[in-house]
Amino acid sequence: MVQTNGFMAAALEEARCAAARGEVPIGAVVVADGRIVARAGNETRALNDVTAHAEILAIRRAATAIGDERLAGADLYVTLEPCTMCAAAISFARIRRLYYGAEDPKGGGVDHGVRFYAQPTCHHAPEVYSGLSESESATLLRDFFQDRRERP
Amino acid sequence: MVQTNGFMAAALEEARCAAARGEVPIGAVVVADGRIVARAGNETRALNDVTAHAEILAIRRAATAIGDERLAGADLYVTLEPCTMCAAAISFARIRRLYYGAEDPKGGGVDHGVRFYAQPTCHHAPEVYSGLSESESATLLRDFFQDRRERP
Repeated sequence: MVQTNGFMAAALEEARCAAARGEVPIGAVVVADGRIVARAGNETRALNDVTAHAEILAIRRAATAIGDERLAGADLYVTLEPCTMCAAAISFARIRRLYYGAEDPKGGGVDHGVRFYAQPTCHHAPEVYSGLSESESATLLRDFFQDRRERP
Repeated sequence: MVQTNGFMAAALEEARCAAARGEVPIGAVVVADGRIVARAGNETRALNDVTAHAEILAIRRAATAIGDERLAGADLYVTLEPCTMCAAAISFARIRRLYYGAEDPKGGGVDHGVRFYAQPTCHHAPEVYSGLSESESATLLRDFFQDRRERP
């Protein structure tokens, strides 16, 4: 559990870095063989790319690092419940375990919305663990949007 | 209709190029103000990236070309029904109209599977038109997989 929390702490650090860059504070890391092989924060603004969610970037970087587009046996830690797009990408990448922080009832696609992994058209579902560093993940997002609303 | 078919013909050309590269033959183009601003074929193999579907690449290239991550007013033509990941990305990009060729009952996320645009957690749904150059799109895919199965 200490190790697991350490990986989520690394994802949270990526989320904080994203906030510092003016990006929505969501972070992710991919772990293989007990070590972090890729990390990413949300970069939709910097890359001018609606698909540049932390999970998508982390999966792409992990594939480059590992040299295989399939990340079988790897785990992904992300601070917020993945959206529908990312839930599907995680499935395509054959991620073994998904650990996420806060739930996202409005935009999530794992335990809300389309619940992708429960669909018959989902051909690989990771094991899902939620609620790790939940309050810290949610606070980061709340503070970010509150700060943006308060700016003139 | 002639114009529309011309855009789907361009998507089919991208699909044929993908096949020639040994990629699953799916192609897409993004059209804005009556002209093609981005085109892509599937590149999952070349880029070693499970997210490198034709639609994702076309959306990213269109955002770069237009200088805006939101493609409001733009239309996307793709030879196969988008998967769940791509259906969500198309929504995030605010694509106005989606035209697709063949249906994909096993992997599609528009008119099959999660039917993303009909979900309450989908915040933007494009108008959807299907069946354009349907048989040509499907034949390309069928021939590709048959050829792969027959190889020693």
